[in-house]
Amino acid sequence: MFCAIVSGEAPAIRVYEDDDYLALLDIRPIVRGHTLVVPKRHTVDLTDTPASTLADMVRIGQRIGRAARASELAADGNNIAINDGKAAFQSVFHIHLHVAPRKTGDKLSFAKGLVLRRDPDRETTGRILREALERLPD
Amino acid sequence: MFCAIVSGEAPAIRVYEDDDYLALLDIRPIVRGHTLVVPKRHTVDLTDTPASTLADMVRIGQRIGRAARASELAADGNNIAINDGKAAFQSVFHIHLHVAPRKTGDKLSFAKGLVLRRDPDRETTGRILREALERLPD
Ligand SMILES: [Zn+2]
Ligand SMILES: [Zn+2]
Repeated sequence: MFCAIVSGEAPAIRVYEDDDYLALLDIRPIVRGHTLVVPKRHTVDLTDTPASTLADMVRIGQRIGRAARASELAADGNNIAINDGKAAFQSVFHIHLHVAPRKTGDKLSFAKGLVLRRDPDRETTGRILREALERLPD
Repeated sequence: MFCAIVSGEAPAIRVYEDDDYLALLDIRPIVRGHTLVVPKRHTVDLTDTPASTLADMVRIGQRIGRAARASELAADGNNIAINDGKAAFQSVFHIHLHVAPRKTGDKLSFAKGLVLRRDPDRETTGRILREALERLPD
C-alpha cells in the first residue's frame, strides 16, 4: 500500500516528502492530523529496517509533532509510535511511524483509538501541517 | 525521577547502559519486559530534545525490541512509543521511549494497558533482556 503511494499509483494527502521519505495523513485517523512517516524503500518492521532509517523517521516525526503544536491544529502534545509486528497491531507491513497530535482533554484512550474517527476536512488538515512544517525553524 | 536513577540515587533494573543512555524496566509494566530508553542528559519532550538524541533513542529501542524477540521473552513484536506532553499521557517529564514486547494473542489493548500489570520477577526479566542484547549481532 505505501509502495503504491510512493510510486504514485495510490492517492494520499502528503504532509512531507523528500528523496527517501514520505509523510501522509492516515486514512483512518485516531485524531485530527494523524500522520504516518514512511521510508520510500520498502522494509517490513524493526527486524529488517536499518537503524539509520529509523533515526531519520523519528527525526521527521519530531518535526511533524512540533509543526502540529505550532499550527492551527494547536496540539498540546503528540503520541509517536511504531507498531512492530502483527502482535503489536501492525496492519500495513511496510514500516511506518505514527504521529498523533493530542490536545489536552481530547479524551482519547488508545483502545478507543482503535475505533476509527473521521476527519471532515482532510485536505485542510494536510495543508495546515505542510505549512507549519515550512515555517518551523531547523 | 530518571535523573535520580542516572545519578544512582534511585534504584532501577537496568537493561542497557552507555555513556549517554540508560534503558530500564518500567516500574509499572503494561507487558513483561516493558523497557524505557532514557537519555542521561535531562530534556523534557519533543520540543527541547535534540533530533540526534531521538535518533539514538530509537536505535537503542530497536535493539531492545530485537532482543525481546530473540530472548526467552519470545516476543512476536513490539510497540515503540514516545508520549510527548501531558496531553499525550506523558507522566514523567524527562523524555523516554517505551519498548513494549508483544506476543500474539496477548490481548493487550492500549487502554487496558493503562491498567497496571505486575511482573512477578522483574530481576529475571531484566537479566533476560541484558543477555539477549549482548548476544544480538550489530
Ligand atoms: Zn511497501
Ligand atoms: Zn531528569
